[in-house]
Amino acid sequence: MAYAQSVAALASALLAGDRLALARALSRVENQTEDAAALLAALYPASGRAHIVGITGAPGTGKSTLVTALAQRYRQAGQTVAVVAVDPTSPFTGGALLGDRVRMRSLAGDPGIFVRSMATRGSLGGLSQSTGEAVTLLDAAGFDRILVETVGVGQAEVEIASTAHTTLVVEAPGLGDEVQAIKAGILEIADILVVNKADRPGVDRTVRALEMMLDIEGDGPRAVRHHGQLLRVESPPRTREAKDPALRWQVRVLQTVASAGTGVEELRERVELHRRWLHASGEFTTREQLRAAHTLETLLRAELNRRIAAQMPAGHLAEVVDQICRRQTDPYSAAATLLAAL
Amino acid sequence: MAYAQSVAALASALLAGDRLALARALSRVENQTEDAAALLAALYPASGRAHIVGITGAPGTGKSTLVTALAQRYRQAGQTVAVVAVDPTSPFTGGALLGDRVRMRSLAGDPGIFVRSMATRGSLGGLSQSTGEAVTLLDAAGFDRILVETVGVGQAEVEIASTAHTTLVVEAPGLGDEVQAIKAGILEIADILVVNKADRPGVDRTVRALEMMLDIEGDGPRAVRHHGQLLRVESPPRTREAKDPALRWQVRVLQTVASAGTGVEELRERVELHRRWLHASGEFTTREQLRAAHTLETLLRAELNRRIAAQMPAGHLAEVVDQICRRQTDPYSAAATLLAAL
Repeated sequence: MAYAQSVAALASALLAGDRLALARALSRVENQTEDAAALLAALYPASGRAHIVGITGAPGTGKSTLVTALAQRYRQAGQTVAVVAVDPTSPFTGGALLGDRVRMRSLAGDPGIFVRSMATRGSLGGLSQSTGEAVTLLDAAGFDRILVETVGVGQAEVEIASTAHTTLVVEAPGLGDEVQAIKAGILEIADILVVNKADRPGVDRTVRALEMMLDIEGDGPRAVRHHGQLLRVESPPRTREAKDPALRWQVRVLQTVASAGTGVEELRERVELHRRWLHASGEFTTREQLRAAHTLETLLRAELNRRIAAQMPAGHLAEVVDQICRRQTDPYSAAATLLAAL
Repeated sequence: MAYAQSVAALASALLAGDRLALARALSRVENQTEDAAALLAALYPASGRAHIVGITGAPGTGKSTLVTALAQRYRQAGQTVAVVAVDPTSPFTGGALLGDRVRMRSLAGDPGIFVRSMATRGSLGGLSQSTGEAVTLLDAAGFDRILVETVGVGQAEVEIASTAHTTLVVEAPGLGDEVQAIKAGILEIADILVVNKADRPGVDRTVRALEMMLDIEGDGPRAVRHHGQLLRVESPPRTREAKDPALRWQVRVLQTVASAGTGVEELRERVELHRRWLHASGEFTTREQLRAAHTLETLLRAELNRRIAAQMPAGHLAEVVDQICRRQTDPYSAAATLLAAL
């Protein structure tokens, strides 16, 4: 039998490291229970310590395998890790622990790791909000790194990933049109570009296409080999503006074969380097402010929408809709009339 | 030099079939110029005659080729067609006419067809709105059929497609995880399922997977061949509720090879059958009401958000955001305080 834990009790249990309390708190946030806001308000002060890494990319790029491999490297480096999957194609999301036993087995049974999938039904606006709130809870629960996996096709999913401190955009060779998708805005949010499945044919073409998009001039890509085996290929850097122009971040193309672990440690090191750069350059504060502003605006909008719905007489909206369908009025005039009456 | 045409002049030119006026009107809607609402209000009464077909599916399924082939079949059947592409992976969107000259060539030079790509940057909320508005303009301009192509991964894109009268969900063999993506809600909106690239290996597995999702019992799929060549495979039907239970729509899995034109005429016929079913069953009215309600709500929200932003003193929000970042307050308490002050 489920029993209703009070907000205060649930919050302290979560802060004390109780994983069951964390799972319960996440469910309340996801289901938007009445006490969810109180819970988040209570736990918010304890958040702000985790480094949040967004991982986005088209389906078929092997994001989930990469996330698993990256989580393992972080564990080996002594850090605790939480994974949030917001990708309908992810084995984490598609049936969670039942979806891909082989990959998941490597993460199970370690208390320093926590995996949570977010429901992908319903409106993405709401999903974006609950993802941010889940991150706050995991942050308050003390995880050092939080990996947020989203599928990078829609702008809304990109938005979820871009609320991260460090954003990885994952590509894979031979997906053709996907590079086109990346062009449409996803690339702009990348702090690190990853070409996964780099043992596949066509990897050079993919890397070159990405580099061209980064408007790289000068040297070509540099292969890094160990005993003749390709470890990764590093591209000449693209610089990114920082408050201090002397402190610039270089967007690079890294190559990984996540299923074999190749290049994953280098990727982790690059993420950590980005983390240090964020703090040194002052960019961290900027990103935190954007995240806070986004959260605040989302809350304000949700509450206002709720109030409007409450003020509108039942049936009135249906009547107006009917008039619109019969072309007796149009939505634009109807909206103006309704707003004037409020 | 661009010259500012009045709303009334632009609207009558559009209604008279002036394609340049249509293109200008679409740009005003997309750029959300000040007179966009007046333009839409003026043209709304002339809308409501087109049949709107949403085409969604993961990247790599060949949606754009299918849309092109379907548009051509409609032209051959004597109908005028407008295409709206909201897919960042679409050759229509990715550089529009420059993107894929070969495919586009087959559509160019015919006044009975009109192709418009929607910018995929910016918020999807706004994109969803402008797509609906573009459809209204094209409808008023007199196109018989409007094909709206979106990439079916995010819920928001699915939402755009689901504002159509008839929704096609496109699959392709061998995409593996994609079928998983479909599971996550896309399938529910399908009026017709299409397995494109049906000459590829693995087509049977894909069809079977889709059928299993449709919970089909009884007979297996039926191959329709012409002189030994596979034309399409029809699956036993899944029924869909209608107001009159005797009038049910059967969701079927059709197979196409859009690049060769195979199965496209059958698909067009199935779309037309669905159109007739919508009107006969009363479902058309229901869908029109949903569309009108959605448009109205979007307009109300946009206007209210604008008013809130206008009322908030400049700098005040930034100050609150700063306090949140310093953990002096939390977004939930801050939102409550701000709302109380409004």
